[in-house]
Amino acid sequence: MRYERANIQAMAGYVPGEQPGDAQVIKLNTNENPYPPPQAVMEALHSITPDTLRRYPPPMADEFRRVAAAVHGLGAENVLATNAGDELLRLAITTFVEPGQPIGTAEPSYSLYPVLAEIHGSPVVRVELQQDWDLPADFSRWMNDAGVRLTFIVNPHAPSGKLVSVDRLAKIAAELRGVLLVDEAYIDFVDPDLRHDSIELVRRFENVLLLRTLSKGYSLAGLRFGYGLGAASLIEPMLTKTKDSYNTDIIAQRLATAALQSRDDAKRSWQAVRSERTRVTEALAAMGLPCPPSQSNFVLAAAGPTGRARGIYESLKRRNIYVRYFDQDRLRDKLRITIGTPEQNNALLAALKELTQSAECGV
Amino acid sequence: MRYERANIQAMAGYVPGEQPGDAQVIKLNTNENPYPPPQAVMEALHSITPDTLRRYPPPMADEFRRVAAAVHGLGAENVLATNAGDELLRLAITTFVEPGQPIGTAEPSYSLYPVLAEIHGSPVVRVELQQDWDLPADFSRWMNDAGVRLTFIVNPHAPSGKLVSVDRLAKIAAELRGVLLVDEAYIDFVDPDLRHDSIELVRRFENVLLLRTLSKGYSLAGLRFGYGLGAASLIEPMLTKTKDSYNTDIIAQRLATAALQSRDDAKRSWQAVRSERTRVTEALAAMGLPCPPSQSNFVLAAAGPTGRARGIYESLKRRNIYVRYFDQDRLRDKLRITIGTPEQNNALLAALKELTQSAECGV
Repeated sequence: MRYERANIQAMAGYVPGEQPGDAQVIKLNTNENPYPPPQAVMEALHSITPDTLRRYPPPMADEFRRVAAAVHGLGAENVLATNAGDELLRLAITTFVEPGQPIGTAEPSYSLYPVLAEIHGSPVVRVELQQDWDLPADFSRWMNDAGVRLTFIVNPHAPSGKLVSVDRLAKIAAELRGVLLVDEAYIDFVDPDLRHDSIELVRRFENVLLLRTLSKGYSLAGLRFGYGLGAASLIEPMLTKTKDSYNTDIIAQRLATAALQSRDDAKRSWQAVRSERTRVTEALAAMGLPCPPSQSNFVLAAAGPTGRARGIYESLKRRNIYVRYFDQDRLRDKLRITIGTPEQNNALLAALKELTQSAECGV
Repeated sequence: MRYERANIQAMAGYVPGEQPGDAQVIKLNTNENPYPPPQAVMEALHSITPDTLRRYPPPMADEFRRVAAAVHGLGAENVLATNAGDELLRLAITTFVEPGQPIGTAEPSYSLYPVLAEIHGSPVVRVELQQDWDLPADFSRWMNDAGVRLTFIVNPHAPSGKLVSVDRLAKIAAELRGVLLVDEAYIDFVDPDLRHDSIELVRRFENVLLLRTLSKGYSLAGLRFGYGLGAASLIEPMLTKTKDSYNTDIIAQRLATAALQSRDDAKRSWQAVRSERTRVTEALAAMGLPCPPSQSNFVLAAAGPTGRARGIYESLKRRNIYVRYFDQDRLRDKLRITIGTPEQNNALLAALKELTQSAECGV
């Protein structure tokens, strides 16, 4: 006998990227930062005492929230600490969407959004991105007409790396009748010359929730720590009602606080990734694998005819180089490649050069 | 403008026990284990490398599940690792209960259950415990008649410490038409002479889910790590569909695994708590504050007329001794007191002796 709800029984779960155990693998498939976390994070780890572990943590991660608020020029009431960004996505659904009410997103996008919607019993309103990966002009109208209560926009976009401007997001926020969650998992890798400052959206709009994570920018994917930024009226019900009572543990709170306090250390890794992003993009284009301009820590390489992308993905894997292949519309002929260290990127480019010149991957 | 759902707006959140920052406080209010976690936990902490933090953790905590399965004589398919016990409570609701369907529990009980039900939009069917804190004979009938899909029984009971036998739980499991979640947060403190082995319920019943946590038994409340044990058919939808994709972080996975592997170390703290539990229970009875026999790491002391319990609670707090007072039916005249170290218990008993002989707390 099965006891789970019919919608849970019917759905497929989220499929995470492969996590090979072999440390020798060149892992460019799940957008991890190739550089180590700030040194202060390790110092915070080593300062944890047995007595700290024995006691309950601060349920609302007060110290982290204070530091994050200071970093972003907001108040602690604008910050919610979460068990990675994924928890914020789930909490936003739980808090702002009645079961069965629709949730909106652009297509393609982070494949977890529809999974979370299915768990909630909510249909997903999908609006196709334009050919250049930009949002269509009538995006908000589609959402409002469908009665969407919560819209997810990942920005920079995954898997293309395309950045939507703050002005454009402000226009969408003003138009939407529901909550706009901007998933900024990759925001730290945006070129600072663009002066992309989304924090002003929090100050201007009562319906904008920004998602931040330490997984990528701070090289802490193993720690599962993220946070939400939003108007106090949006944050408050999640902070005091819908999150698990002690949702983040004391080690994660301490390490995340140390990480944000070491922003300058982290910034050096962002700059290194951007510099390599430019080089890898150019090298890929030169070998017939063009990528749209990315503001993220990955690029989306077009591999030509369908079948060839999967062939390259599999051939790379045989050489212990992992990249991400998505078997879905608009992505079957592409590969998402995380920007690694110069050495990793060189190995990737050398392997790709060989593969694209050989018949191994069905060219 | 408020964007949260009407049920969220209407509800009150869970109120955690006070977490005073002052390390001088004698903290007997949130059932933390007074002894440090096993030494191997600290060794696991210090062996975490920057590269471990940089990468995603195993999404299903495979190594922890393997070790937990071996400890309990089950298979890994019977184990789900969670972000503390609270996550398992939430996941069970998400997975097995349609929004709006009723959830069952005994009254009084852990105050988080009705909060989680409210978030889900589900009514709570509450069955009053008998005067001796035992479940009434017709408990299952109440649940089935109300169409309850998920029943929570905390065993040993909180806040009384009363233990329901495995035979009794088996009878209830066989009778219930829905899932029975036995919240065993305090199971490690049960007297081993009682030979209370609930694991057989997992082998015998497809509808029994046991909740375990490392917060109390392993002195790791700060770590937020728990797990569920159940039939593979109950575990599977939570493991592969409804839990957050990477719900436990790599540090917690490693430390929790080390803790379970050091069960003999932890057992010494359980024995010490049991021994002090006997002494504290007798001393409280001798000063007119009788407790029902507890199989947990706390006792529920009856403080006589209503008003006196709150007075004692407040007077203790002024002396930097924190115990738990619940302003609700059947508990207003009682205090829940965590068993501490011998020194902490002596300080508590001395303060109580003084208070119950003075007029300070409204006697």
